[in-house]
Amino acid sequence: MAGAARTMHHTQRFEETGSVMQLFVTPASPWVRRVVVCIIELGLEDKVEMIPTRWPHEWATRTVPFAPDFAQATPVGRIPALVTGQGLRLTDSSVICDYLNAEHGQYRLLPQAGERRWQILSQVAIACGALEAQISRRAELLRTGADRSDDFIDKMKTRALRCFAALDEAAGAFGPEPDLAQITAGSACGFADFRYAQDGWRDAAPRLARWYETFAGRPSMIRTRPAETPQ
Amino acid sequence: MAGAARTMHHTQRFEETGSVMQLFVTPASPWVRRVVVCIIELGLEDKVEMIPTRWPHEWATRTVPFAPDFAQATPVGRIPALVTGQGLRLTDSSVICDYLNAEHGQYRLLPQAGERRWQILSQVAIACGALEAQISRRAELLRTGADRSDDFIDKMKTRALRCFAALDEAAGAFGPEPDLAQITAGSACGFADFRYAQDGWRDAAPRLARWYETFAGRPSMIRTRPAETPQ
Repeated sequence: MAGAARTMHHTQRFEETGSVMQLFVTPASPWVRRVVVCIIELGLEDKVEMIPTRWPHEWATRTVPFAPDFAQATPVGRIPALVTGQGLRLTDSSVICDYLNAEHGQYRLLPQAGERRWQILSQVAIACGALEAQISRRAELLRTGADRSDDFIDKMKTRALRCFAALDEAAGAFGPEPDLAQITAGSACGFADFRYAQDGWRDAAPRLARWYETFAGRPSMIRTRPAETPQ
Repeated sequence: MAGAARTMHHTQRFEETGSVMQLFVTPASPWVRRVVVCIIELGLEDKVEMIPTRWPHEWATRTVPFAPDFAQATPVGRIPALVTGQGLRLTDSSVICDYLNAEHGQYRLLPQAGERRWQILSQVAIACGALEAQISRRAELLRTGADRSDDFIDKMKTRALRCFAALDEAAGAFGPEPDLAQITAGSACGFADFRYAQDGWRDAAPRLARWYETFAGRPSMIRTRPAETPQ
């Protein structure tokens, strides 16, 4: 049951420190990963309670049972979902990143305004395109019967590789400090290695691959390496 | 072929006025609609060239051919896609709305910072959840063989109705001036009427339905009523 794995350890630790945020997570989701990498890079770990969720494979085609706290946090029923210290529900990784960066990060991962904001968001949108294609493909691969469409799987593979090729251009201009585009691109590369290593995304994006070799060594990336979804 | 319907009339009109934005559109997409409603509400119509695209039904499971200008505008291959006057590619409706509101709209649809920004984005994320569920269901319904999953269709119907029920709470606090949450919610309601009238979303969200009755009468909404996707 999604959210049922929440532990007393987590809950108690934060009740003592007053108003904290709650983030619903799984270790496999690249959408969760980009948020958690932002949290680590911004030094916000003490302000966020991580609440594990469980997802039986049926999630791909069915509404799975939600734990009450998760259902309360997000009517959409997807992870990540953040509940702020003020009780506001933010149920989308892009909105969550925008909020953490602005309210708790002094805009260090994405400027508040100006040309650089839009350059970064232009790259973010392409990296999100790669993420979404990879997740849609994963959901399709979890279909076990005649309802699996090999055409759809191929469409999503092709889309992700187009996005990686486009990120390859962007990677040439990535700066020395991590930003939201790099974090999102890194999550996309990491998920490709986790689920679709045979695709050879590095062939489509050799500069991105060189950049990722270094970026993947950051503590924030090492500590968020994908692991299988708890059932 | 996507983008092939671009007309000389459009192209010539804007070459005379110098640097303009290009937006790739179809009349059926609620993602496009939220962007175009923002454009109309912000009074930006003279600054944006609308470029029609065509989508054969095969888009649901296959990579369809892209016109060269569309392929250049977005590696993701989805609409809407915006090319700014400076040539920056923004390929995601949320990023496009953020850009138009900030750079060309004096933040009239979404404040630049502060509690109200996050309240609105909290509602936007739920409305986007309804939109995404409705589009995923549409793609599934376009599958014509054994690869159509009735379970998946039901999951997406259930998710959309959960989101509408959550927006019903939000609707009680909608202000008199349109904001990005209202525009996105309005696009979700309009798409539900267009594709899934039989679901009866108004039963799940009676306050939202009353609000929508008025909101749907705005010129920006009347002028963007959904029409079938050009093949």
